[in-house]
Formats: sequence, C-alpha cells, structure tokens
Amino acid sequence: VDFVNPRGFLEKFPHCYPNQGWRPVAAFQDVTVMAALGMGFLASSLRRYSWSSVAFSLFLLVLGVQWALLLDGFLENFSNGKVVIRLLSIQLATMSAMSVLISLGAIQGKANLLQLAVMVPLEVTAFSTMRMVNRRFLNDHANMMHIYVFSAYFGLTVAYCLSRRLPSGTQEKDRTATSPSLFAMLGTLFLWTFWPSFNCALLNDPNERKNAIFNTYYALAVSTVTATSVSAWAHPKGKINMTHIHNAVLAGGVAVGASCHLISSPWLAMVLGFVAGLISSAGAECLPVCFNQVLGLHDTCGVYYTFSLPGLLGGITYIVLLTLQISWTKNSMTGYQVLYSEALRMALASNALCLVFSLVSGFLTGLLLNLKIWKGPHVTKYFDDQAFWKFPHLAVGF
Amino acid sequence: VDFVNPRGFLEKFPHCYPNQGWRPVAAFQDVTVMAALGMGFLASSLRRYSWSSVAFSLFLLVLGVQWALLLDGFLENFSNGKVVIRLLSIQLATMSAMSVLISLGAIQGKANLLQLAVMVPLEVTAFSTMRMVNRRFLNDHANMMHIYVFSAYFGLTVAYCLSRRLPSGTQEKDRTATSPSLFAMLGTLFLWTFWPSFNCALLNDPNERKNAIFNTYYALAVSTVTATSVSAWAHPKGKINMTHIHNAVLAGGVAVGASCHLISSPWLAMVLGFVAGLISSAGAECLPVCFNQVLGLHDTCGVYYTFSLPGLLGGITYIVLLTLQISWTKNSMTGYQVLYSEALRMALASNALCLVFSLVSGFLTGLLLNLKIWKGPHVTKYFDDQAFWKFPHLAVGF
Amino acid sequence: VDFVNPRGFLEKFPHCYPNQGWRPVAAFQDVTVMAALGMGFLASSLRRYSWSSVAFSLFLLVLGVQWALLLDGFLENFSNGKVVIRLLSIQLATMSAMSVLISLGAIQGKANLLQLAVMVPLEVTAFSTMRMVNRRFLNDHANMMHIYVFSAYFGLTVAYCLSRRLPSGTQEKDRTATSPSLFAMLGTLFLWTFWPSFNCALLNDPNERKNAIFNTYYALAVSTVTATSVSAWAHPKGKINMTHIHNAVLAGGVAVGASCHLISSPWLAMVLGFVAGLISSAGAECLPVCFNQVLGLHDTCGVYYTFSLPGLLGGITYIVLLTLQISWTKNSMTGYQVLYSEALRMALASNALCLVFSLVSGFLTGLLLNLKIWKGPHVTKYFDDQAFWKFPHLAVGF
Repeated sequence: VDFVNPRGFLEKFPHCYPNQGWRPVAAFQDVTVMAALGMGFLASSLRRYSWSSVAFSLFLLVLGVQWALLLDGFLENFSNGKVVIRLLSIQLATMSAMSVLISLGAIQGKANLLQLAVMVPLEVTAFSTMRMVNRRFLNDHANMMHIYVFSAYFGLTVAYCLSRRLPSGTQEKDRTATSPSLFAMLGTLFLWTFWPSFNCALLNDPNERKNAIFNTYYALAVSTVTATSVSAWAHPKGKINMTHIHNAVLAGGVAVGASCHLISSPWLAMVLGFVAGLISSAGAECLPVCFNQVLGLHDTCGVYYTFSLPGLLGGITYIVLLTLQISWTKNSMTGYQVLYSEALRMALASNALCLVFSLVSGFLTGLLLNLKIWKGPHVTKYFDDQAFWKFPHLAVGF
Repeated sequence: VDFVNPRGFLEKFPHCYPNQGWRPVAAFQDVTVMAALGMGFLASSLRRYSWSSVAFSLFLLVLGVQWALLLDGFLENFSNGKVVIRLLSIQLATMSAMSVLISLGAIQGKANLLQLAVMVPLEVTAFSTMRMVNRRFLNDHANMMHIYVFSAYFGLTVAYCLSRRLPSGTQEKDRTATSPSLFAMLGTLFLWTFWPSFNCALLNDPNERKNAIFNTYYALAVSTVTATSVSAWAHPKGKINMTHIHNAVLAGGVAVGASCHLISSPWLAMVLGFVAGLISSAGAECLPVCFNQVLGLHDTCGVYYTFSLPGLLGGITYIVLLTLQISWTKNSMTGYQVLYSEALRMALASNALCLVFSLVSGFLTGLLLNLKIWKGPHVTKYFDDQAFWKFPHLAVGF
Repeated sequence: VDFVNPRGFLEKFPHCYPNQGWRPVAAFQDVTVMAALGMGFLASSLRRYSWSSVAFSLFLLVLGVQWALLLDGFLENFSNGKVVIRLLSIQLATMSAMSVLISLGAIQGKANLLQLAVMVPLEVTAFSTMRMVNRRFLNDHANMMHIYVFSAYFGLTVAYCLSRRLPSGTQEKDRTATSPSLFAMLGTLFLWTFWPSFNCALLNDPNERKNAIFNTYYALAVSTVTATSVSAWAHPKGKINMTHIHNAVLAGGVAVGASCHLISSPWLAMVLGFVAGLISSAGAECLPVCFNQVLGLHDTCGVYYTFSLPGLLGGITYIVLLTLQISWTKNSMTGYQVLYSEALRMALASNALCLVFSLVSGFLTGLLLNLKIWKGPHVTKYFDDQAFWKFPHLAVGF
C-alpha cells in the first residue's frame, strides 16, 4: 500500500505553527466575529447605506487583513527567506484591519469602492508604522489600543478632505429606518458581547487578561446604563434616541481599552464607563451641528463621539494610572521626578505620536483620494442605492 | 529605566481571580450571548416594539447584572470588608438578570422605561432571596433552573396588575411583520444554539455537564420537530404559525432544565421535549383567548406557554426522577418511606416556594409599579413607536 | 440524610462520554452555529421565502440530525444492544444534516413541508451510505468534504425532477429586497466566520487542524476580494450584485475543503480561493440563463455555482496534490506508476462515486417526491407567503 502519511508532506514543507492550545483559536474567532459581524452591521443603520456598508466592510476587512499580513510578514517575521505566519499574526492583522472599518464610519457615502480599496493599504501601513515606532515605548496591548484614536482621527481627516465634493441633498441620505436600525443594534450587540475578548486579546499574563475582561465588562455595563438614561432624560417625552444606543453603549469599552489590565478596582472601570457614556451621549446630541456648520465636516456614523473622545479619555487615564503607579512604587521620588520619569514621558510621547500620525497620514490619504483618476466616468458613487439589488435569475422556461 | 512591572501594581491591589482555564470564559461568553443577543431579539417580533424591545432588553440586562453583582457581593462573597468578584459571579449575575428579560416578555408594552428600571432590582432581589432560601434544599444548578417558572409567573402577575390601565386599541399593536419576525427568529436561533451551554453552566462534574449538554440538545431537537409539525397540522392549509416556532421551539430546553444532568437515556429527554413542544404549541393556540377573556391578562410574547408550563413540567420531572432514584438506591424502603424521604420533601418544598415567591413578589411589584409617581406628565408610554428614530445629523454646510 | 449523589445514579445507567476537554464542545458549537444560523439565513434573500427558509431550515436540520444519529448509532456504534452517543456523533450528524440544507437552496419554492420532510431521511441515508463506502478509500475529513459536491448535485437533480410542475409567474418570486438581503448577508457572514472551524472539525492532528484553519481563512479572504472585484467590474456602472457577494464569497471555503490540511503554502490556498471566486462569480452571471433555458432547471439560490463547481475544483486539487505528494515521496517511481498508484486510484474512485451516488439518489428521490400522495388537497405549497404570519393574540377584554 503506497498511502502516505500527510505528516511527511508537512515535514517537507513545514509551516511553523507552535502548538498553543485551544485559547488562541477562540480568541482569533472572537476578533473575527467582532470585525465581520460587529463592525459590518454597526454602520448599517442609515437607510441608503445599509446593504453597501455590510458588503463593503467585509471587502475592506479582508483586503486589510491580507495587506497587514504581508506587511507584518516582511517586516517582522522574515527569516531565511521565509515568512512565518502564526495564528497570532492573523489575529493582529484582523485587529489592524479593524482600523479601516472604524474609519469607514466617517467616510461612508463620500467615497466609491475604488477609493476605499486604495485607502486600505495606506491606512494599514500608517497604523503599522505607528505601532512599530511606538513599540519602543509600549507593550503590544497598549500599543494596539491606540487603534481607536488613530483610526477615528484618520477617518475624520479623510472625510474632511473628501466632504467638500459632496452634492447637496445629503440630508435625505441620513435617514434611518427601523429594520436597518435593528441590524445596527445587532452589530452593536456583537461588539458589546465580544469587546472583552478584544481588549484582552494581546495580553499574555492570565491575571492581566482576567482583569481586562472584568474591567471592560464593567465599563460597558455602566456606559450602557448611562447612554440609555441620558438619552431618555434628554428627550422632552422621555424617548430613546437610536444613535445614542448604537454608539454610546460602546464608549465604555473604548475608554477602558488602554488601561483595562491596570485597573484594580471595579469602581474605577465603572467611573470610566460612566464618563465615557456621558461624553459620548453629549457628543451625539451636540457635536453634529457644530461639526457640520463650523468645520464643514460630516461624520456619517458618529465616529468622533464613539471612538475619538472615549479613546482620548482612555489615553489620559492610562497616563494618570501610570503616574500613580510610579509615585506609589517609588516613594522616594518627588513629584517633579515622577512627572519627568521615563515611563510617563514614553506614554505621553506615544499618545502624541498617535495623534500626529493619524492626522498627517489621514490628510495625505485624503489628498490622494481626491485625485480625479479614482473617479472616471465608469466609477460612480456607490450610494445610488437601487444599484445594489439586481434580479439574479431570469427564470424562464418553466 | 524606571518602567514598572504592572504585576507589582496588581499585587498591591489584588483582585482575586482563581485561574480556571479557558472553559469559564467560554461559558460566561455563551451566557452573555444568550442574554444580550438571544433574549434581546426574541421579543422583537411585534411590529411596534421591535426596536424598543431590543434596546430595553440590553438596558435591563445590564442593570440587572450590576444589581445582582452587588447583592451577591455583599451577601455572599463579603470578607474582610472586600467584595471578591469572580468570573462565576458575573455569570451567575447574568443568569439572574435573565429572569428580568423573561418577565419582560409578558410586560412589554404595558410599562415605561422608568417602571421597568424600578422593576429590575425588585425582581432580581426576589429571585436571589428565593435562591438563597432554596440553597438549603438544592444544589446550585437545580436552584437556578427555577428561573423559568419564577420569572414567568412574576412577569404574568406584574402584567396582570398593570394591564387594566391599558387603553383600547391594543390589537393593532400586536401585529407582527416579516422583517421583525426574522429578527425574532434570530433571537430564537441564538437561544436554541446556546441553550445547552446555559443548562450546563452551573454543573461542575464533567460527566454531569456532558449529560446536560446532550439531553438539552435532544429535548430542543424534538420540541422543534413537534412545534413545526403541530403548527402545520393545526392550520387548515398546512401553514406554519410564526409564534409557534418562536416559542415552542424553546420549550424543550426549558422542560429539561432542572433534570438535564440526571436523565440517563436520550429517550427520556426526547419524550420531555415532545411533551413540552406539544404543551407549548397547544398553549399558543388556545391560551391567549382564554387569558384575555377570562383573566383580563395580556401575555404579550407568550411567556406563559414558553416558560411557565414547560418549566412546571420540568419541576415535576425532577421530582419524579428523584423519587425513582431514591426508590432504586434504597431497596429496603417502602413506598411510604420514599414519598416522605427528605430529598423528595425538599424538592417539593423548593418548587412550592418558587411559585409562592414569584406570585407574591410579582403582585407586590405590580402594585408598586401602579403608583402614579412613575407616570408623570413627562414620562410617557414608550410604545408610540415614531419616537424611537430621530434624524441624528442635521447635515448642513456642504 | 438520604440525599443521594447523582453520580451514583449515573453509574447505574452509564452514558459513555469520554472526557475530551473543552475543544470538542467548542467545535460542536461552531458547527451548530453554522448550520442553524448560517445556513438558515443564507437562503433568506428571496422576498417571498425569507421567513419560511429560516423556519424550514431549522426543522430540516433537526430532523436530519436525529435521523443521522439513529443511522450512525445502529450502523456504527452499536455494541451489546446499546447505542453509544458521543459529542463527536452529534457533530458528525449535524454535518451530515447540513447536506440537506445545502440541497434546500436548489429546491426552495418547489416542494412543500411534507415533501421536504420525506427528503431528509432519504438524503441523509444516501450521504451516510456513500461515506460508509468511501471510508475504505479516504479518511474521515476528506470523506466528509464530499458534502459540497454530493448535496449540490442531489439538490439540483431533485429540483430538476420537481421543477416541471411549477406554475408560471415564478419570476416575481425571485425578487430580492434589502432587508432580507441583509439577513442573507448575516448568514453569509456566520458561515464565513466559522468556515475554518467546519473544515478542521474532523482533523485530529493539531498540525493538520492549524493548517486547515489557515488555508480556509486564506481561501475565503481571496475569494471575497475576487467576488467583490468581479462583481463591480462586470457591472457597467461599477455596482455590486448582492447574489455575487452572498454566494461567491463562500466559494473559497468550499474549494479548499478537501485539501485544506495538505496545502503547505498560503499561495496555493490563495490561488484556489481566487479561481473559486472567479468560477463562482462567472457562474452567477452566466449560468442561470443557460440553466433555465437549456435544462429547464431553476436553481433558486445558486447552489450550482456556490457549491458544485468549487467543490469539483476542490476534488481535482486534492487529486493533484496527492499525485505530487506521491511522486515526491517516491522518487523511484515513473510517471506511469504514479498515475496508477493505489492512493490516487482511490481518490479518483471516491470522487466518481460521490457524483454517481448524488445523481442517482437525487433522481430517485425526485421521482418519489413527484408522487401525488404528498400533495393532497390540504397540503398546499408553502410559498404563498401571507400564510406565515397570523395574528397571534386576539387581545380582547382590556
């Protein structure tokens, strides 16, 4: 019998996967569920974009993952002419690609498929470069948690560059409807349920991972209560605004991201969630008018108050916690010494770097996407909605 | 370099999480998926409540989890002035909070957000108190499985107290529609898929856990077949009724709950599933008319035939199995002795206690919620549906 | 105290579940999620079948699982008059039952509930028989991966037998709509996310399992990019066709199925995904017209280009890889010897067997379902859609 053990085949062309037990598979799956199902449906509440937002999200996610894998492979895991792909590599690539999906929330309706496909490698490269620079200052987890601030500002800057070209009549396109709104709620609930997995995905110490799961859960819980209460309280008849729920509910998870493994008391996570929910709800109520009139910037899905502001709050919290930690562990230091300690300077530097990187790379990307070549006669805007359903079968001959 | 190991920070403020491997995280996640996605969408089939039922479910779930955590922390895990929160605590709290979501099915459309927010701590406290009393008789699993009967009767009693104040014209509000019905089906399928995880969540012995998974799966499978067949058979043209599928499909999981770890033969679980599916379908067909006309009670989402009746069936099965087990293991006992054995008396007592507790606490809660203070001029009923979508962006200045 | 340890009860009536850790539970859950949520919603895009396709899928899945369990129990695991059910048995049964769900895509709208219920045991038996015959040639994984080709051709043959009886006016029934299309996208995304779990479910070697996860992911990613690009490129205005996305996105997972554990280089998986996406998109564009006019065959949900063609591609790839493997490991063999080696002959034989089995059993089933007895006066077609929502509560007496 010449049946050959496939393991021999594998040994000849080895594919180095260290045996890591079942946990990484589950963690990888959770992140993929968040990216494909959660982020895909989160932005589907607008009546005219519901279908395209889901389909485009999947397309951009997949493009982004592949680009991030290549980038990571050639820059990091390149040895002896071979690129070694680990399960963790795909997980990291999925998390990097989620930056594109967050940015998409601001750009939706302003760019066609070609422009978005061009944006993906640019944003993923910028994000990976920022993470590579920041690696000198921060560990993997804190580094990845810049994703919220980075991608929100990146998306907003790109949207700012693109938005002037929009025709009038956009108000009509902003309309939400019940059924899409339920789909958006589905996306929100997927993100809500799996956010603890996202925030703990890059932590290796089991204690830190447990801490991250707990604190993310507390912050999400409190920001949900806050968002619902504020929304009901702000309306003259005690009614709830859909957009508050879709977005503010998640603000807690964003705010607690960077420091979720450091927070030792549930109360702190809950206070963070409360403040994040408050900021996010207030932003959803007040910012659109200000943004639209003052800046001429149209933030389609509320990326600014869902990710930017809570993300900045998270960055500040991380710095404050680090300061307290340093001052507690080194009692001999004076306040002056604490403020100028290296760890603190590094955290500050990395946050500043993240902001600068996102704004500069977003601006350059926006300029590039404004070129005429992406808008030939045959590349129409994707938001004439009738386009997205054609009758698949001609059904003759019965 | 003054970079400090975060573990030092953690050691200073310890947060006691015993290392429990990956299983508890997965079990906790499954329960959260059931509560947030499953219960949230289950009740979304009514045309006018689809959006609010999903948003309210999340709000009530989160409120309930936090209250249950506090309650559990101060009553159970309070030592040396510190509350110790474990992953299991959050899982237990989520399961307790699901009692509110089950009750919500009966109350939906009869109470505003403020009334519901008041109901949450009352119901969770009543349920936790009942479990604490019952702990003397039963193990954790059997104790938690009273959730179906308790929360269904609690919700029905509250609905009975509230329903007299309803304006006429409610028929119109009962209408279902295709798209929400698909959302309800989504909720049903989430519950269906993860119900085995729910029923085995509190069992520690691996053998018992496996038994629970298998038997729940069998019962769910058979009740699905039963519900679909009965529904097609009952209709003169062989058509299927949506509500039968939404609810009766789950009856098997409810009925098998209390005794799922004791059942040794698949046939028994399948018979239970069959009877539960039959009871539930028959109830869905006949009970609403009777309830509405005789009792003046409007059970919006069919909590009575989805949870009450199969739950009672499950309680009886548990007692019968226990009796058989006692009579088999103690051959010397006479029938008289068996009936008066302590284990049996305890199971009977706990079931009676559950019924009494739910009715009394539900009645008191209903009376409290009927007070005028919850219905000020600015706290309107939440079921004028137009309220729930406002146009989020004003979109000017392009 | 006469409280009895339930373990004693279990020991008396043992239910043999080997302790297999947490992985099998997760794998089983993933497969159930794919079958219930993924396959259920995948076919829901047609406006008139959305509700019934979801409800029928669950019914058929559950029937199929039970029949497959019985079949497997009596034929395989029958010892000492006892049927031993393992978690793996249920997982295998779920995978077998998915063959019915794949076939359903072609039959949808052509059969009533009774006919479908009759089809379930016939198809599951045929599929199990084929697997039993093939077990002499192939391992469990490669054997199960024939599911795509088998069930697609089975479904198409049944549809061919049934389709002549269809009344005219079917075009109208093919219409898709936005909201159901989003549900179909939900099904697609569930399948997309959990497909790696499906393809690796029956592999025992951790290395092979990891390989399968990676390669399935690569193939899915590339086929998603291909499908979206082709769809946008084929449309004169650069718009995306919903059906392309729903189906072609999954073609990569189908094509890579049989050989996913053998492929050593990501490039090969990606090329497979690319070709599969291309074939599937081209098929979606061209085949319906040809099928409808030439063959008089109406493939409702595009089973032919989603499962048949990529499945055949996967079968050919498996044979080619096996040939290369044999020629590499046995350098002394001539090309003639390689082509006539036993392993290769076995792979070829199993593929041919699968095709023949599916066509013959599908044809016989189709003839049987065409009998008049399944269409009595009271068994109407299930696709008069108004039937599926009745007003559940009469709501009087308030």
